[in-house]
Amino acid sequence: MEALDQTALPLHERWLALSSAAEVAEAIRRLAIRGAPLIGVAAAYGVALELRGEPTPAGLERACSLLARARPTAVNLAHAVERVRRAAGDGDPRAALEEARAIEREEEEASQAMARLGADLLADARTVLTHCNTGLLAAPGRGTALAVIAELHDRGRLELAIATESRPLLQGARLTVWELARLGVPHRLIVDAAAPGLIASGAVGAVVVGCDRVAANGDVANKVGTYGLALAARAAGIPFVVVGPTSTLDLSTAAGAEIEIEQRDAEEVRRVGATPLTLAGTPCLNPAFDITPAALVSALVTERGVVEAPSPDSVRTLARA
Amino acid sequence: MEALDQTALPLHERWLALSSAAEVAEAIRRLAIRGAPLIGVAAAYGVALELRGEPTPAGLERACSLLARARPTAVNLAHAVERVRRAAGDGDPRAALEEARAIEREEEEASQAMARLGADLLADARTVLTHCNTGLLAAPGRGTALAVIAELHDRGRLELAIATESRPLLQGARLTVWELARLGVPHRLIVDAAAPGLIASGAVGAVVVGCDRVAANGDVANKVGTYGLALAARAAGIPFVVVGPTSTLDLSTAAGAEIEIEQRDAEEVRRVGATPLTLAGTPCLNPAFDITPAALVSALVTERGVVEAPSPDSVRTLARA
Repeated sequence: MEALDQTALPLHERWLALSSAAEVAEAIRRLAIRGAPLIGVAAAYGVALELRGEPTPAGLERACSLLARARPTAVNLAHAVERVRRAAGDGDPRAALEEARAIEREEEEASQAMARLGADLLADARTVLTHCNTGLLAAPGRGTALAVIAELHDRGRLELAIATESRPLLQGARLTVWELARLGVPHRLIVDAAAPGLIASGAVGAVVVGCDRVAANGDVANKVGTYGLALAARAAGIPFVVVGPTSTLDLSTAAGAEIEIEQRDAEEVRRVGATPLTLAGTPCLNPAFDITPAALVSALVTERGVVEAPSPDSVRTLARA
Repeated sequence: MEALDQTALPLHERWLALSSAAEVAEAIRRLAIRGAPLIGVAAAYGVALELRGEPTPAGLERACSLLARARPTAVNLAHAVERVRRAAGDGDPRAALEEARAIEREEEEASQAMARLGADLLADARTVLTHCNTGLLAAPGRGTALAVIAELHDRGRLELAIATESRPLLQGARLTVWELARLGVPHRLIVDAAAPGLIASGAVGAVVVGCDRVAANGDVANKVGTYGLALAARAAGIPFVVVGPTSTLDLSTAAGAEIEIEQRDAEEVRRVGATPLTLAGTPCLNPAFDITPAALVSALVTERGVVEAPSPDSVRTLARA
């Protein structure tokens, strides 16, 4: 299986050849493959890959566990692994591959549907701000939030997309800018800290983000920094829209406070590439995600429909539709 | 005049020898010398330095204007230049130098007073989050907000200081961490986007920041990202405290919306040092400051006293005390 190494973008387009579940899990862990929908699909193929080697039941168990726990916050990762494993029955690699392909196809179709629904919802937004990377590098098809921006651009409605750089790993500066440039969408890059002031200034019509997991009450776990954007959007009275496939809905988690927030290595904060930003050994906190309470979410856009002001009832209805 | 080149910290302690107002202005513009109180003092010495060369009236006018406009958002910069120039009368370099020294001494005393008053106010805070750099690198004496943190540490009350990195120029990662390490204050560094989620999690007792200018109604211009911290502090119900000498109060500006926000070079966003973060030529927005409305400010700590929930009346009283 081949995967674009997203850690090397935008300066290098380097492809990885992955030949085992362990290699796929490692690529997910170090964010060479990233984005909740995409890591689900990658992990699904990882299980199929592993089954080609006719593993022992214990070996398969270990491989699946490695994949499912490669990153703790996204919920669809574990679901995708479980689905492929079940489809494989006694270990049929062909059935596993078919199931992985089915998951990928479903996510592609979901992406198209979310792009349409999100663009309908935000038909009046001329300047849209987004965070992290949620395009075709993050999800099969066109992505999630960035798919909405691309669709608004296709419809000729969008004047400007504003991308936050998304420290520490700069998915906005590296990946979203790369995608927006390829799409021909007029854009500006800002540091994360500039977003609230820019929103307050009236320069932004809507904030659109993806999600790594949505709890049963509508609380959203997404890239660290999302919560601050939601606060600023609410204070300015502009829509704060979360876009994600129903595979990211997690009815088994009642509220955001129960979602495990991945803490990543301090070195990500201390450096950019090889450049040290601070004194060596400086102690850091490096949560990869934060929780945005449902009360700050104007709308949740999924492939099955749009829910305004998400609640336990509306999230449950969507998840079971 | 010698000045520590703050762009080289924390990896190098490099000193600049500045011999003209133009060189001082350039050092201020490129942030080798920075922090509202410190650039005021540096500009004051810059005028004195210029007068030693016995400039023509037009030459002095040009030099003062260069210094006063080196950065547009801080208000004390222009005030300090005007004060030294007036003290110099017909161009007496000795009187100018004395006035510059008086300004420096006043700011040092203000720093001590703010440290005391701020630490009294926040006596119960165990974990304090701060933004940008507001220590002895930013203001004569011990600084402003960071002086409060240092004083809390001296009093044995502080458990942890959390510093935001403060992109794009990383004053938190480079300068605040360097100061906290020298002071022996236990600390953690975070990316800017992590602050709101951390505040919401209950891990932060208070947010303490400096200010570049305070408008007559109490609105605060400070390092970009400050407004987002204020929103998060308010949502979490913790104090959001602004610390600055009365030299940053500007009664001639009615409200924050009237304050000129310095827009800096896109290259600051596109790079860290020599490391490119995004595609070459990516268009950026790079405001150096944002505006925090007075309604989000729990208290304003000046050397003349503390004002809770600042209003036009209380700011005027402070400024004229």
